[in-house]
Amino acid sequence: MPFTDLLTPGGQRAHDVVGPAALLDRLVETEAAWIRAQGAAGAIDPGTAAAAADRLGTGRDYDAARLAAAAEGGGNPVIGLVQEMRERVGDAAAGGDPAWRPLVHRGLTSQDVMDTALMGLCARALDRVLGDLLEAGDALAVLAEEHAGTPLLARTLAQPALPTSFGARAGTWLAGLTGGVPRLRRARGGAVLAGRGRRDPRGPRRVGRPDGVGPGSSPSGWGPPGEELGLAGEGLGVWHTRRGPVQRLAEALAEAAQACARIAGDVVLSARAEIAELSEPAARGRAGPPRCRTSAIPCCRC
Amino acid sequence: MPFTDLLTPGGQRAHDVVGPAALLDRLVETEAAWIRAQGAAGAIDPGTAAAAADRLGTGRDYDAARLAAAAEGGGNPVIGLVQEMRERVGDAAAGGDPAWRPLVHRGLTSQDVMDTALMGLCARALDRVLGDLLEAGDALAVLAEEHAGTPLLARTLAQPALPTSFGARAGTWLAGLTGGVPRLRRARGGAVLAGRGRRDPRGPRRVGRPDGVGPGSSPSGWGPPGEELGLAGEGLGVWHTRRGPVQRLAEALAEAAQACARIAGDVVLSARAEIAELSEPAARGRAGPPRCRTSAIPCCRC
Amino acid sequence: MPFTDLLTPGGQRAHDVVGPAALLDRLVETEAAWIRAQGAAGAIDPGTAAAAADRLGTGRDYDAARLAAAAEGGGNPVIGLVQEMRERVGDAAAGGDPAWRPLVHRGLTSQDVMDTALMGLCARALDRVLGDLLEAGDALAVLAEEHAGTPLLARTLAQPALPTSFGARAGTWLAGLTGGVPRLRRARGGAVLAGRGRRDPRGPRRVGRPDGVGPGSSPSGWGPPGEELGLAGEGLGVWHTRRGPVQRLAEALAEAAQACARIAGDVVLSARAEIAELSEPAARGRAGPPRCRTSAIPCCRC
Amino acid sequence: MPFTDLLTPGGQRAHDVVGPAALLDRLVETEAAWIRAQGAAGAIDPGTAAAAADRLGTGRDYDAARLAAAAEGGGNPVIGLVQEMRERVGDAAAGGDPAWRPLVHRGLTSQDVMDTALMGLCARALDRVLGDLLEAGDALAVLAEEHAGTPLLARTLAQPALPTSFGARAGTWLAGLTGGVPRLRRARGGAVLAGRGRRDPRGPRRVGRPDGVGPGSSPSGWGPPGEELGLAGEGLGVWHTRRGPVQRLAEALAEAAQACARIAGDVVLSARAEIAELSEPAARGRAGPPRCRTSAIPCCRC
Repeated sequence: MPFTDLLTPGGQRAHDVVGPAALLDRLVETEAAWIRAQGAAGAIDPGTAAAAADRLGTGRDYDAARLAAAAEGGGNPVIGLVQEMRERVGDAAAGGDPAWRPLVHRGLTSQDVMDTALMGLCARALDRVLGDLLEAGDALAVLAEEHAGTPLLARTLAQPALPTSFGARAGTWLAGLTGGVPRLRRARGGAVLAGRGRRDPRGPRRVGRPDGVGPGSSPSGWGPPGEELGLAGEGLGVWHTRRGPVQRLAEALAEAAQACARIAGDVVLSARAEIAELSEPAARGRAGPPRCRTSAIPCCRC
Repeated sequence: MPFTDLLTPGGQRAHDVVGPAALLDRLVETEAAWIRAQGAAGAIDPGTAAAAADRLGTGRDYDAARLAAAAEGGGNPVIGLVQEMRERVGDAAAGGDPAWRPLVHRGLTSQDVMDTALMGLCARALDRVLGDLLEAGDALAVLAEEHAGTPLLARTLAQPALPTSFGARAGTWLAGLTGGVPRLRRARGGAVLAGRGRRDPRGPRRVGRPDGVGPGSSPSGWGPPGEELGLAGEGLGVWHTRRGPVQRLAEALAEAAQACARIAGDVVLSARAEIAELSEPAARGRAGPPRCRTSAIPCCRC
Repeated sequence: MPFTDLLTPGGQRAHDVVGPAALLDRLVETEAAWIRAQGAAGAIDPGTAAAAADRLGTGRDYDAARLAAAAEGGGNPVIGLVQEMRERVGDAAAGGDPAWRPLVHRGLTSQDVMDTALMGLCARALDRVLGDLLEAGDALAVLAEEHAGTPLLARTLAQPALPTSFGARAGTWLAGLTGGVPRLRRARGGAVLAGRGRRDPRGPRRVGRPDGVGPGSSPSGWGPPGEELGLAGEGLGVWHTRRGPVQRLAEALAEAAQACARIAGDVVLSARAEIAELSEPAARGRAGPPRCRTSAIPCCRC
Repeated sequence: MPFTDLLTPGGQRAHDVVGPAALLDRLVETEAAWIRAQGAAGAIDPGTAAAAADRLGTGRDYDAARLAAAAEGGGNPVIGLVQEMRERVGDAAAGGDPAWRPLVHRGLTSQDVMDTALMGLCARALDRVLGDLLEAGDALAVLAEEHAGTPLLARTLAQPALPTSFGARAGTWLAGLTGGVPRLRRARGGAVLAGRGRRDPRGPRRVGRPDGVGPGSSPSGWGPPGEELGLAGEGLGVWHTRRGPVQRLAEALAEAAQACARIAGDVVLSARAEIAELSEPAARGRAGPPRCRTSAIPCCRC
């Protein structure tokens, strides 16, 4: 149970896409895709590649807590994970083959695997976020329609201005939520773009050929693993050195969070007893609606 | 002479687009465009509108320091500027007409004018930034071409990895600089988009019609001023309440700054005496090249 | 297993002070201290208070995952926790008494309990951090002493300057680590200060008297719970509304982190193959030392 | 007229302590103090030192705009300033002496001068800020006293809670403003502390002796200039390499700004027409009080 769940209520809804198990799944998938890519590129026998990749299993076959503790020495969990993976694929008694051991993580760096796995994790998280935004947007569109004629005061600098409608305000919320959708989609595409890039051809070494296997030749330099990982796209470079796509992803999420926070802030303000334009329905696990606790000071709602 | 020029060398190059005089120019242009828009929309006589707008002059006709000091009470310089503008257009002795006074800032709020002027200022700044980035990109493209075969060590986690070329590194710098250009262009477009938007038609009041003149009906609700101010485009809403476009503009600039900083950081590191891959040419006003000041400790370059 | 452990190696060392179980412990302790304080203040029978407080148990008696999920409706885990606590103390079959139910959380708000528990959590975390800093400081003092005569180049703006010693550099690291210790101690004290404060006596209501029990009268207004929770001290106000102490705590931690990061950055730079002033020992789970992978480009160390 | 004055009203009040002229004054003072310190330390004739230092004049004797433009090549204004200073002191026709030229900036780096001047600037700014905070605090103390019995609703999570008094709220504001005063005083002291420090005696070279003049021996290594510059104190190290004191200064200012912003936020909220607990007096240059512009929606104040 992640710590933050007690402090950021609702966190449990994201476990399956951003929790430790999901990260382990993405790490294992990345290493498996890399083995299969070696087969597809003709560097090793495709059948062997498939068998070895299958033997890696899924994240559930590894102990996240042990890997996390082991990560302290080297600064990342991939080093320990690769050790365990090699033991798994090399275990003849369990259907593996010692000859498969060197195929795991062949020519990769920890950062190759970490960055690609995190991009896979982000792609799934973005899908979830996009779905949630569009669902909330649909609800706001209904509110905007139904309350097109419900009068509400607009304010300028917190002071009363001309009348507007609650529908218009809901429309502004809707515009905020959906205004960031294209860039969220581009951000997902941005990950993709980087995900299958070829290195700069002006460099002295062409990456992405089986014979180019060595430090620095990442899965992102390979078409097949990119496609298999759902990170297909066109583009130049890897995100180890070009952080623009990662920055844009973070910014797109920040805009989405900001659009949600703005609605929340407007609701809290509008639900103040003195303003009382909006109220939240009572709900299970929620403290009761504000009750008038004193008559010493008159307030509008009691 | 702005304070920051002593602390951020090169700042003087930006005075004409982001200095106080430029801001005043944008504020005056915004108010003038609004008067002309009233004429174009038939709310007032177009000839009167043109004459009154012309009488506003340019930023140089106003005293920035006095306006800044006067801004303290109300929190923005528009209140004082509008007072001075009304005196200017109403001064019959100087070719004005007292009847023109109410045309100035008619139905606007300070924020309408401030935000629109700042967007105009940003649009010009973006043009400058885009030009500088593309010029630097051209120079990097030449470096990348010329040094495609100049060997250089790549590093992984600061330690030597495989050889690459200086051309490849320059190509990465180039990719960083140009990678953000599309979004910078969109950011400029984003300002535009917001600049001519119509309010949400579901609201009880349609903004952008002459008869809609009143608090909250901003220049952004008018086609003509938007076009005249170079903020033409299509879109919904104003940037008072939808900050997404402003946020995106800031983010695009942050990415551009980051791409420049990355080049600078790489050069500082590569120019360390022990690494000595790159060196900066001597230049006027620049402290001399590092000289070896001791032989107690051997270093590669002396 | 918290998510961040896979991404921030070493995180497992902090579980016992900042993990979900620790937070639950602090929440339970806070509610228990409050019941005992009612006894100590004479609002209820002290023996009853002690028995009811004991019945609350510890964090392990509650299900963190269930409480986290239940927190979604009301936005914090205290609402659900209080429900479960009342069931526990009211369960006659298990040694409780239905009459004790209203003693739990009597007159408190969720924020009272949340903030106090988080302060208790921070106080323990600060003790750990202070211990770690002093231990690291001792190690640096030894380095500074032993290497007082080991020559090292100083740099100015990344270029060679006069010689200094590694001992002097270690001394600078030491000064960075220990320079923030007084404010870390003050930060812990700051939490304490707020922890036992009396409300402003100029206000119309004096908090901290048993008859003052009601919304807004927090544990921080009571001497006994403050002392019992290890948050004893003198001061005015609560940290719901005065965030200064919390801000200072965050800043003190930021300075400590910065002092550590500076050492790490210096080591990474000094361990570059071309500089080679320092090297890290090989360690279990750590990728091997940098090996020379090519002879195409000469480097100092191979 | 600094740009920001149009955007941050009130900025003109700070020109004399943080404007470009003030920075130039601090830069000139720093160089002058260094020449005098050479005299005081016996490295040069004290009479010569005094005469040469006097010839440097004040910031007004230099052209800030020209220095700012000249700073572009080397990245800071000190390089150009030192050139102009040497011309001044060496101009025999104007009472100087060519033999004095090498005394200017002897053995200093640009960063020595820049950092010391900025610390001098910050010390003066802190004095101003402390004075303003205490003056505002006095006003709040009067409010707290006068309104100890003026009832006001307290809120919890934006909803009505128990009654409190406006005096109590003013007391909370007061506590916020004055709570940060000790650390602001320490921050000023922190600058001082660093200002007169001796380098770590474990290093191979003792700084602060006349014969130690050379790169890296900053004014901060000298007692006399530290005292003369109002940066007297005890301590170890310089703030080139130990940024803790600088960070603390920034944090102390952030807390002060936050305490002010909190009052402003409370006032804006309390002055909303629906809440109407507080109102701001009309003032010159301030837009008029909110007037009721419509009767379609009832509001409390019209």
